[in-house]
Amino acid sequence: MRDIAVFTGSAHPRLAAEICAYLGVPLSPVRISRFANDCLEVQLQANCRERDVFLVQPLTAPVQEHLVELLLMCDAARGASAGRITVVMPHYSYARSDKKDAPRISIGGRLVADLLVTAGAGRVLAMTLHSPQVHGFFSVPVDHLHALQELAAHFRRYDLSQVTVVAPDLGYAKEAAAFARMIGAQVAAGAKQRFPDDRVSISSVIGDIAGRDVIVLDDEIAKGSTVLELLERLRESGPRSIRVACTHGLFAADALKRLSEQPDILEIVCTNTVPVPAEERSDKLRILSIAPALAEAVRRIHNGESVSALFEEPRSAEPGEGRHGGNPPRL
Amino acid sequence: MRDIAVFTGSAHPRLAAEICAYLGVPLSPVRISRFANDCLEVQLQANCRERDVFLVQPLTAPVQEHLVELLLMCDAARGASAGRITVVMPHYSYARSDKKDAPRISIGGRLVADLLVTAGAGRVLAMTLHSPQVHGFFSVPVDHLHALQELAAHFRRYDLSQVTVVAPDLGYAKEAAAFARMIGAQVAAGAKQRFPDDRVSISSVIGDIAGRDVIVLDDEIAKGSTVLELLERLRESGPRSIRVACTHGLFAADALKRLSEQPDILEIVCTNTVPVPAEERSDKLRILSIAPALAEAVRRIHNGESVSALFEEPRSAEPGEGRHGGNPPRL
Amino acid sequence: MRDIAVFTGSAHPRLAAEICAYLGVPLSPVRISRFANDCLEVQLQANCRERDVFLVQPLTAPVQEHLVELLLMCDAARGASAGRITVVMPHYSYARSDKKDAPRISIGGRLVADLLVTAGAGRVLAMTLHSPQVHGFFSVPVDHLHALQELAAHFRRYDLSQVTVVAPDLGYAKEAAAFARMIGAQVAAGAKQRFPDDRVSISSVIGDIAGRDVIVLDDEIAKGSTVLELLERLRESGPRSIRVACTHGLFAADALKRLSEQPDILEIVCTNTVPVPAEERSDKLRILSIAPALAEAVRRIHNGESVSALFEEPRSAEPGEGRHGGNPPRL
Amino acid sequence: MRDIAVFTGSAHPRLAAEICAYLGVPLSPVRISRFANDCLEVQLQANCRERDVFLVQPLTAPVQEHLVELLLMCDAARGASAGRITVVMPHYSYARSDKKDAPRISIGGRLVADLLVTAGAGRVLAMTLHSPQVHGFFSVPVDHLHALQELAAHFRRYDLSQVTVVAPDLGYAKEAAAFARMIGAQVAAGAKQRFPDDRVSISSVIGDIAGRDVIVLDDEIAKGSTVLELLERLRESGPRSIRVACTHGLFAADALKRLSEQPDILEIVCTNTVPVPAEERSDKLRILSIAPALAEAVRRIHNGESVSALFEEPRSAEPGEGRHGGNPPRL
Amino acid sequence: MRDIAVFTGSAHPRLAAEICAYLGVPLSPVRISRFANDCLEVQLQANCRERDVFLVQPLTAPVQEHLVELLLMCDAARGASAGRITVVMPHYSYARSDKKDAPRISIGGRLVADLLVTAGAGRVLAMTLHSPQVHGFFSVPVDHLHALQELAAHFRRYDLSQVTVVAPDLGYAKEAAAFARMIGAQVAAGAKQRFPDDRVSISSVIGDIAGRDVIVLDDEIAKGSTVLELLERLRESGPRSIRVACTHGLFAADALKRLSEQPDILEIVCTNTVPVPAEERSDKLRILSIAPALAEAVRRIHNGESVSALFEEPRSAEPGEGRHGGNPPRL
Amino acid sequence: MRDIAVFTGSAHPRLAAEICAYLGVPLSPVRISRFANDCLEVQLQANCRERDVFLVQPLTAPVQEHLVELLLMCDAARGASAGRITVVMPHYSYARSDKKDAPRISIGGRLVADLLVTAGAGRVLAMTLHSPQVHGFFSVPVDHLHALQELAAHFRRYDLSQVTVVAPDLGYAKEAAAFARMIGAQVAAGAKQRFPDDRVSISSVIGDIAGRDVIVLDDEIAKGSTVLELLERLRESGPRSIRVACTHGLFAADALKRLSEQPDILEIVCTNTVPVPAEERSDKLRILSIAPALAEAVRRIHNGESVSALFEEPRSAEPGEGRHGGNPPRL
Repeated sequence: MRDIAVFTGSAHPRLAAEICAYLGVPLSPVRISRFANDCLEVQLQANCRERDVFLVQPLTAPVQEHLVELLLMCDAARGASAGRITVVMPHYSYARSDKKDAPRISIGGRLVADLLVTAGAGRVLAMTLHSPQVHGFFSVPVDHLHALQELAAHFRRYDLSQVTVVAPDLGYAKEAAAFARMIGAQVAAGAKQRFPDDRVSISSVIGDIAGRDVIVLDDEIAKGSTVLELLERLRESGPRSIRVACTHGLFAADALKRLSEQPDILEIVCTNTVPVPAEERSDKLRILSIAPALAEAVRRIHNGESVSALFEEPRSAEPGEGRHGGNPPRL
Repeated sequence: MRDIAVFTGSAHPRLAAEICAYLGVPLSPVRISRFANDCLEVQLQANCRERDVFLVQPLTAPVQEHLVELLLMCDAARGASAGRITVVMPHYSYARSDKKDAPRISIGGRLVADLLVTAGAGRVLAMTLHSPQVHGFFSVPVDHLHALQELAAHFRRYDLSQVTVVAPDLGYAKEAAAFARMIGAQVAAGAKQRFPDDRVSISSVIGDIAGRDVIVLDDEIAKGSTVLELLERLRESGPRSIRVACTHGLFAADALKRLSEQPDILEIVCTNTVPVPAEERSDKLRILSIAPALAEAVRRIHNGESVSALFEEPRSAEPGEGRHGGNPPRL
Repeated sequence: MRDIAVFTGSAHPRLAAEICAYLGVPLSPVRISRFANDCLEVQLQANCRERDVFLVQPLTAPVQEHLVELLLMCDAARGASAGRITVVMPHYSYARSDKKDAPRISIGGRLVADLLVTAGAGRVLAMTLHSPQVHGFFSVPVDHLHALQELAAHFRRYDLSQVTVVAPDLGYAKEAAAFARMIGAQVAAGAKQRFPDDRVSISSVIGDIAGRDVIVLDDEIAKGSTVLELLERLRESGPRSIRVACTHGLFAADALKRLSEQPDILEIVCTNTVPVPAEERSDKLRILSIAPALAEAVRRIHNGESVSALFEEPRSAEPGEGRHGGNPPRL
Repeated sequence: MRDIAVFTGSAHPRLAAEICAYLGVPLSPVRISRFANDCLEVQLQANCRERDVFLVQPLTAPVQEHLVELLLMCDAARGASAGRITVVMPHYSYARSDKKDAPRISIGGRLVADLLVTAGAGRVLAMTLHSPQVHGFFSVPVDHLHALQELAAHFRRYDLSQVTVVAPDLGYAKEAAAFARMIGAQVAAGAKQRFPDDRVSISSVIGDIAGRDVIVLDDEIAKGSTVLELLERLRESGPRSIRVACTHGLFAADALKRLSEQPDILEIVCTNTVPVPAEERSDKLRILSIAPALAEAVRRIHNGESVSALFEEPRSAEPGEGRHGGNPPRL
Repeated sequence: MRDIAVFTGSAHPRLAAEICAYLGVPLSPVRISRFANDCLEVQLQANCRERDVFLVQPLTAPVQEHLVELLLMCDAARGASAGRITVVMPHYSYARSDKKDAPRISIGGRLVADLLVTAGAGRVLAMTLHSPQVHGFFSVPVDHLHALQELAAHFRRYDLSQVTVVAPDLGYAKEAAAFARMIGAQVAAGAKQRFPDDRVSISSVIGDIAGRDVIVLDDEIAKGSTVLELLERLRESGPRSIRVACTHGLFAADALKRLSEQPDILEIVCTNTVPVPAEERSDKLRILSIAPALAEAVRRIHNGESVSALFEEPRSAEPGEGRHGGNPPRL
Repeated sequence: MRDIAVFTGSAHPRLAAEICAYLGVPLSPVRISRFANDCLEVQLQANCRERDVFLVQPLTAPVQEHLVELLLMCDAARGASAGRITVVMPHYSYARSDKKDAPRISIGGRLVADLLVTAGAGRVLAMTLHSPQVHGFFSVPVDHLHALQELAAHFRRYDLSQVTVVAPDLGYAKEAAAFARMIGAQVAAGAKQRFPDDRVSISSVIGDIAGRDVIVLDDEIAKGSTVLELLERLRESGPRSIRVACTHGLFAADALKRLSEQPDILEIVCTNTVPVPAEERSDKLRILSIAPALAEAVRRIHNGESVSALFEEPRSAEPGEGRHGGNPPRL
């Protein structure tokens, strides 16, 4: 079997290092230079020839820098005769640009998928894409993971007998229900109302909230406005406790601070698909690592084992086992 | 300017003829032969050279026959040196296969988009795609129309002072709100509840229903189950009247009969994106023609005029003017 | 070496099962669903990752259904990270659409070849293509088998001392001569006359017929008209016996019945590249299996052994050995 | 309408000049340089920008030189922003490499088609391809002319009341029959016999020959062996006179001399798709120009008029009108 | 003729506005949004359909932002059915990454060329590429301008009788000689010495310097180190005066300040291919506009006129006429 | 590991045989036929299936014949299911066509790169390309070797204490400096002067020449004019001895004779990347074999070992070890 070689750009080297630690392989060095004219040059500093190359880079801010870095890494790996190039992209931010809801706009989610293939990407390992259709934007195979198992393992430390999992809207309710099944909980969802003037607001929450221990679950938290609006509705129903959980903790525009300041939010849980700066962290924040899940997926991709099988097997309730993935929203 | 040439496959020749009538151009003949071995051969029986060729074919049942016909028509037009080939596909049934929600399944919506381009399609004119992301599956330009203007023109014949437009779920609520704005109505939406066992049901309707004239609005009606379920919830709130409207009236599995038998449904309105067999029609059914809208889009595409502008201009309330389109969900 | 995975669509599952039996590998299950809107969805129900995937599907009637099935299977296998995808297409019916003999017609043989590649096919295993040029329509490698060895093995059970092999026209005479060499027979061919009004008829048979045991050999029999016409000419020369043999026994339009009713046809021999419905079979029909030949080709493709070598080695006359192929018309 | 620009390589500048004369446009100059290292460089010495560019080059000997010249001309025209690039290739010699009749050989007919497209060719104008399937090797539109009308115009100067047109084999009999229809003649064909040792010989001629004025018609004459063999069979039947006609007069290996020396061949007729060196010409040779037909096709391609229509209209018998084409074997 | 539409990204809107002013067409507005997750979205706010679209964007710092902006603009124009998309890229910074002088590095100049084509660019208008080979990195037509005419017009205001044009090294000497011819001057070049340890320094200047009015000419000035080093050699030869000129005035790392502080540099001349911030400008700096040259090239591209002809015609010496280009180093 | 299969065209079979000898693998036979119409056909006469195929062919005169041969070999290997196709092209003559220095010319270096990929080439092994940017013309991985190690090994037999390596111009000075480092010598370079009339001549040599043992080093010698001109300048400085060395000894137009006749040239050294006809050789000529270097690169490519590592390791001074390569100009 071809050897494996893992490289990382500058977006999230700590995550790449963690993945390598789980795999028991070294993180190969990359030299990224910036010239006087601000152009980037990438050098992969380990042999790629016929290797099974994995390039780890979530598209976090500064997104354009990290994207071009990643494209240059793909190009360098291809030029260096890599046997196969897999882009490990735990957060694909451009996935939000997935439709043309105004005339003459770009559809960034499709364009960036095509750019990656042009640059040499042969396959993609992604996590919790904003909409499942984005999978179809790629002309190369995509392995699409989620982090529900990790989140479940975290919450199993609590008494889960009175838990209701709440999705902010129906778009994420399928995942919320899957998560609720994992931890033996009930499920609820915010019901959004759209007014004739096209305003949308969460008008109510469908499901039992009164006296329940609520876990609000979403795919990502950026500015946090949706969660804050949901919170107002939840409070009207009198929950016993409130926790917030998501996969991608982007926390733009002081979102983390604003959420932490809510006195009735006991805990904010996210994963490390994107780095959260140390100075922004709060006491209420808990960051779970998806490095074990990504490492296991990389291992299976490398060995030609089924990745979807990861999610099909029954799982025990021990937190220690949660690290290999979770039930797949879709593969 | 290059001449125009319009051809149709066997899926919906009446619609093609109607489009041509509005355009004031002849519908050019096509010979479709089936050989002893069941293979198809297509001959376009009018000069295509440097012409602006439009091929009209919704992907209706038998879908596979109509798809291969369409692919052969594209191939024939390309081989005959067409100047440009636009596929006019008022109903893109494969758009429902837009995600990978089980391991190792095909994503038909993306595949068929690629097949059309391989066969020679240079652009696509579509109507009310099942999800807006499907737009991004195509590597060629797509003009994406909707039929809200036609539906609005139809309903303006009624007293609209007490109308509430109801979307079966939030996924279609944006269109429902746009439609409500057009006719000066309120908007409501079914709130779906997802149970931990992954069952989904409409648990309630958010918005004012009691004593209102309800128009249920959806993108397509296939088996009609969703509408029937919504109906039960609506009845609990005591509406004054109920009408049902959609763009694509597929009416599979006796759906039309079952809906017509509901005594409190006063009217079922759809458009002619797909043909409804004469023998299945009921007294309550009203079919609106989107041929004028498609014809106007074809005319603008041919002349290089903005298609999105169609939807941006203010419209008068006269039914007679509604035939050129409507406000665009997205272009 | 990568593992092998064999799947079949609904065109000819029995053949696929037989191939798997010879290979000693399981036939992996496929789920083919048809939605309410008549669209198909395919799920390959065994791990494809890095596997050497073979998809067995002759393009038999209903051709369009089987073609789209096959395209979806290719797409599913590619999306599931198959290591290599080989389409095993024992009968490529669209090969007959191989030229543009009228203005503005499709060339289906080339188009379908391109569609298969677009859908993900990486190579093709075909049998007795209608014209050898069709090989060049594919942009991926093609292994082109024939069934002469199987047919020879069958006829070696008879006394072959007085046999003349007759090709209906010169187009198939090269194969007929190769076949005659295999069994130590003479060769003859129908001479077609083309009249100024473009009618064609078999005007005579060139070669010795009188008192001979005739084997009429063609690549396929669809409606059987050519064979019936040849028969008339043969009878004029007084053969001792007549047998008919072909690779693809399509038998459209009661061909099998009409041929069987000819009293002087002693036997009709074909192979199982396409299924012959049980109810249409006659006592005179003998179906030979090309599953062993296809299985051996699959085995060699999988192991990287020469497929053409199959046809180059001298063969013994024992029927038992005939199953691995025969002399290649072309590779 | 975009202006036209016609260029020629070094294969047949006289034909290009003649085409331009008929079109009434100048033949734009091309500089072809050969460097010290034997590489070629092409410069198109007239503005190509947005022009409708036609590059005239039959692939005659030295074929490789002329092919690379043509590829460089395509590249230069593309780089110079040509609006459209049409390769006018009156003789496509690589069309004979159209199948894989031995293991591991190249299929030059398909490869060269792909190379032309890679170099920038957007369409092809060809004449009397060796087999009609070669049309399908091109992924760009092909206009496929023939020279039957020119040949018919030539022979109409004779008394045609006793003429039989003879095709050397059935492969060219369809064209021979079309030609016979044009001039009101009978048709016959050589019947080839294939022996078990794979030798082929013309065993007889099917049709009336005795006392007839015979015109032997083939697509091309290279070494002339087939015609000489046919001649022997014809003589056995006692024709009144013999003439030989073809489209492509390649006349390799002294073919012209050997044919001219046959006392009973009264005339040898070919067209100027390839140049016949002055020193090789004989008194019996008559070269017809297909420049008018090519010029008319170029004009129609440029103006977006139907090229196939050229062949569909009834033609008068006046020789003067024959120059624009003839009945199309296929378009 | 199709209408023209010119858009600009955020790299150099002033230049785009100036080009539009010369063309007499409006600069169409573009909306560039940045989302909470740092992704960009572009909306072209004027009809593109069948328009001849020009997108103006030099790849200046921040290069990655401007590159992704440009890619999104291409994608938006393609999706909006632009008739043709020309990228006007007065400075292609990634052209410096044109070779692989270390193992496993990216070749950014080729990669970015491919990315632009993937995003929809159909042609490129560039200026003074770092090496002429970069032209060959593009698979679409490139018009390659230079600014020598503009520079010559500027210097013709001086007495040019004693001028020597000095290229820092031989790599730019061909352009320097062309420039010298334009203004009737002598030419000289820095001779670089490469030491065995791979250091390079300018060891001498070949040509007459003593007592001459020197114009140092280079394609771009980034950090200015080369010019400063050349200055030391020049001073050794006693020139009468020194001026510095270049096309791309990048002036990174205080280059402008350091050059301006050299007392014997009388003037620093560059063009506006990239913007020079107002606060960095010095009294010695003179910025010439290449907007007229770009506008004229755009006009000719739009009208299908020769762009190379621009450079072939004799030019008068009047400064006012210099604005349309200059003698082409290469087209 | 897949087996290796090495084939050669007719350009330089001796080199291919030598490479195979070093590798210890057989040179597989190729049949190259020329048809009556001058078309070529290639048959690879050894199994290619899943093999690691290497096709050895420098593009030497007759270049067009050898190029088309090579393209047909690629096509045949692809059609024969080669696992990977590497073109071993020790001399890429079309690399000199690397820029567009006149309007409407072809860029042969890029075009031929694209043709090779179209024909099936999956990677390229090249040697001392004319300009390093040509590497970027290929869309497939390129391994770019040089022959400095071989040249160094040859010269180490002499006393190197007084050696100066002279590059004819600065364009090759980087390689000259690398070479000087290898043998512990000084470096110098011809300084070219470009006159305002665009003539170029070597005006002086920068570096110490007087009393030194000079080795003139260039990448290739075609007509030898540059070397002869440099010689005149060198003589002015009084060197102790002069030797001439290059990688590609093309020796067109009697170059070898003219150089050999220079009495002060003691030795002319080249490698065997292109064949030198025996009858043209002179006593002063010394041809070094780069077969060992190519063989080692092939071995490493086949085994997935780093090729650049070849050049990074310190080398001993023994001539016998020089055969594996040399310090890499670039990989």
